[in-house]
Amino acid sequence: MPVLPFDIPFLSVFSSAAGGEEGVAFADTLLSLFILFLAAKMGEEIFRRINQPGVIGELLGGFIVGPFALGLAHVTLTAEVFAELGVVILLFTVGLEVRLDDLLKVGPMAIAVGTIGFILPILAGIGIGLAIGEDILPAALVGLALAATSIGITSRVLAEMGVLDRAFSRVILGAAIVDDILALLAIGVLSGLAEGDLGPETLVTLIAGLLFVGIGLALAPLGRRIPRKVFVWPKFADTPVVPVFIIMFAGALLAQFVGLAAIIGAFVVGLFVAETPVREEVEHGFRSLLGIFAPFFFAVTGANIDMSALLDPELLLIVLVLSVMGVLTKLLGGIIGSWRLGKWNSVVVGMGMSPRGEVGIVVAALGLSLALISQEVYAVLLAAVILTTLVAPVMLQWVIPRAPRDERHGGDEAGAAA
Amino acid sequence: MPVLPFDIPFLSVFSSAAGGEEGVAFADTLLSLFILFLAAKMGEEIFRRINQPGVIGELLGGFIVGPFALGLAHVTLTAEVFAELGVVILLFTVGLEVRLDDLLKVGPMAIAVGTIGFILPILAGIGIGLAIGEDILPAALVGLALAATSIGITSRVLAEMGVLDRAFSRVILGAAIVDDILALLAIGVLSGLAEGDLGPETLVTLIAGLLFVGIGLALAPLGRRIPRKVFVWPKFADTPVVPVFIIMFAGALLAQFVGLAAIIGAFVVGLFVAETPVREEVEHGFRSLLGIFAPFFFAVTGANIDMSALLDPELLLIVLVLSVMGVLTKLLGGIIGSWRLGKWNSVVVGMGMSPRGEVGIVVAALGLSLALISQEVYAVLLAAVILTTLVAPVMLQWVIPRAPRDERHGGDEAGAAA
Repeated sequence: MPVLPFDIPFLSVFSSAAGGEEGVAFADTLLSLFILFLAAKMGEEIFRRINQPGVIGELLGGFIVGPFALGLAHVTLTAEVFAELGVVILLFTVGLEVRLDDLLKVGPMAIAVGTIGFILPILAGIGIGLAIGEDILPAALVGLALAATSIGITSRVLAEMGVLDRAFSRVILGAAIVDDILALLAIGVLSGLAEGDLGPETLVTLIAGLLFVGIGLALAPLGRRIPRKVFVWPKFADTPVVPVFIIMFAGALLAQFVGLAAIIGAFVVGLFVAETPVREEVEHGFRSLLGIFAPFFFAVTGANIDMSALLDPELLLIVLVLSVMGVLTKLLGGIIGSWRLGKWNSVVVGMGMSPRGEVGIVVAALGLSLALISQEVYAVLLAAVILTTLVAPVMLQWVIPRAPRDERHGGDEAGAAA
Repeated sequence: MPVLPFDIPFLSVFSSAAGGEEGVAFADTLLSLFILFLAAKMGEEIFRRINQPGVIGELLGGFIVGPFALGLAHVTLTAEVFAELGVVILLFTVGLEVRLDDLLKVGPMAIAVGTIGFILPILAGIGIGLAIGEDILPAALVGLALAATSIGITSRVLAEMGVLDRAFSRVILGAAIVDDILALLAIGVLSGLAEGDLGPETLVTLIAGLLFVGIGLALAPLGRRIPRKVFVWPKFADTPVVPVFIIMFAGALLAQFVGLAAIIGAFVVGLFVAETPVREEVEHGFRSLLGIFAPFFFAVTGANIDMSALLDPELLLIVLVLSVMGVLTKLLGGIIGSWRLGKWNSVVVGMGMSPRGEVGIVVAALGLSLALISQEVYAVLLAAVILTTLVAPVMLQWVIPRAPRDERHGGDEAGAAA
């Protein structure tokens, strides 16, 4: 490791000693991490002081210091890794707060919300795609880019507002799993169609994804039988934090390996640990990890916001139409799928499912690499994905206080569990 | 962020969607981090179970999965950043355990240990360098590479054995600061001489380094007057952990900027926070950060071990001579400088100063880039630096139990402070 890698004149001898370019890259990486973190926290601070969701402040803080604004921080591969670990730890801690039984109780509702909320955006996207003159396959890709929810942002808002124990939160989390499995399938089918070879791989991928979630959920109840001493059995472990970190990391990697999002793996591991006797200890120990890693996720997401598509009025219009339809279709999916939770609670579910994220970006990138869509449509899709991400926290902060606690389905169990 | 970056056949469509090479690099980085972490913990586990220092197990674990052995994990830039943050957090938490008054009490002794233990290895290195036929300047470089202590390893051993409150620990920590300032000066002078322009920059660098440490130590007592509410004033801070993390990170970057090691900056910030009322809360909150980040430092250090120089019997001899002289000179520096602590305590100080680290590697790399030394001498220096690192923990575990607590100087205050 370079000791003195800053590239200022009277120290240049050191950075050359540390390996020239590598030394500079190292220093730049560390400094960029610091700037991203600081910007996220300052943004959060400002937004909290004006009673707005802190997460929007973190996103905007990252945007402001990022390459598309002031350019003070580079989004290095290292920053992306910190961001990924941040959202993995975030979803793991969300899993810690959810009781598996409560989650399974809302299972059918979550499947309805996840499925309806996945199909409607695809239909809307196809409609918009055809309307702007695309063929059916590119139009389907536009729809798919709008279909997959990313619950990083939502779960942060739910945690911040202290409502992770509410029924709507569990429906959102369950629906996100369903959503991710559907995305896995749809991406496989679409790319198979585009490349003209819809082989058995798609089926294998789907089965692997279903098996992962199925086995994970089936194993979770076994957590109750595992005594604390198993977690602190290693000599290196005074507390369960490090062993659990290893399990969480492994779960995230395994989920990625079978084709799911890493955060789904981390969430399932969180569900498992929540059933064990070390739950509270782990929750406590992970608090500082969450505090240090999670801001990188929001700062990096913000720093990657490229709003250049919004400068062209015609493209701006398409972006707005896509964003509005993106939010409305998820909202409708939530309302239809979880209507039994009551009006406002189902609106919360719909809004909670609205933010799109990395899956939408991956789909757009896939379309670009398969030459299904143009650079312009790609930029439009990214902008629309990001807008849905920015809108949701503000809306959630507004609708959650309106959702009554004593709705008939789910609310009661939630109260009892808390 | 790529969602599915693993480069396995039926998922290749995903990694291409995630940007091809970048997606693979991302997946490889995450997986390498996991393997390094797991290897460090497994190595620690095995060594602890055979009653050897855990840190050696972590180093060897990293070595075994690293590029010079099995090659399962790549030492990416991201891994180096995790390692650097690991040792920064380690030295910060060590600073938390030290009371400034106790450190200042051993100040003269620390200056003696740091200075004698810096000059003796240089003299020995010059002697060996001349003996193997080098000119005076390359020989001086060999000496300098052997001169600078790196206390990452030692402080981990001291913390593991619960002896950070002992007088010898404070002498080692103080001497490490002195040592780092001397290294800053010596590297500047040597590279000035080698390039034939010993300008005023060296002096500026030295003054900046002295100012940093001086101002840091002068500010630390002010910590006593800072109430807890200042640390949790930000709305984003329920606990002081995140604000203190920012201060620690800034201190490490600032130290690097003025030419000191980042860990010296983190240590000084730790001394400061130790004086504030949030000390215990921060110590508690940083425990999981330490548990997650620090293993990367040891694993990466281990993974970077290139022992190829040891395969040539002639080079192996030089390596062994350099290592033995490296340990003996530091030992002598400790014994002479802290003789008043008593025989065994002063031996502990000397052994604690023995591990060399990144500064030695930087000096060797500097020599190579200035064409002062050959590739062979470079490899020999690296191997010698690493051997001093491996020897110290084993020796410390052996000598520390022999060092009586009731020595006249320093021991008493340590007892009172504990």
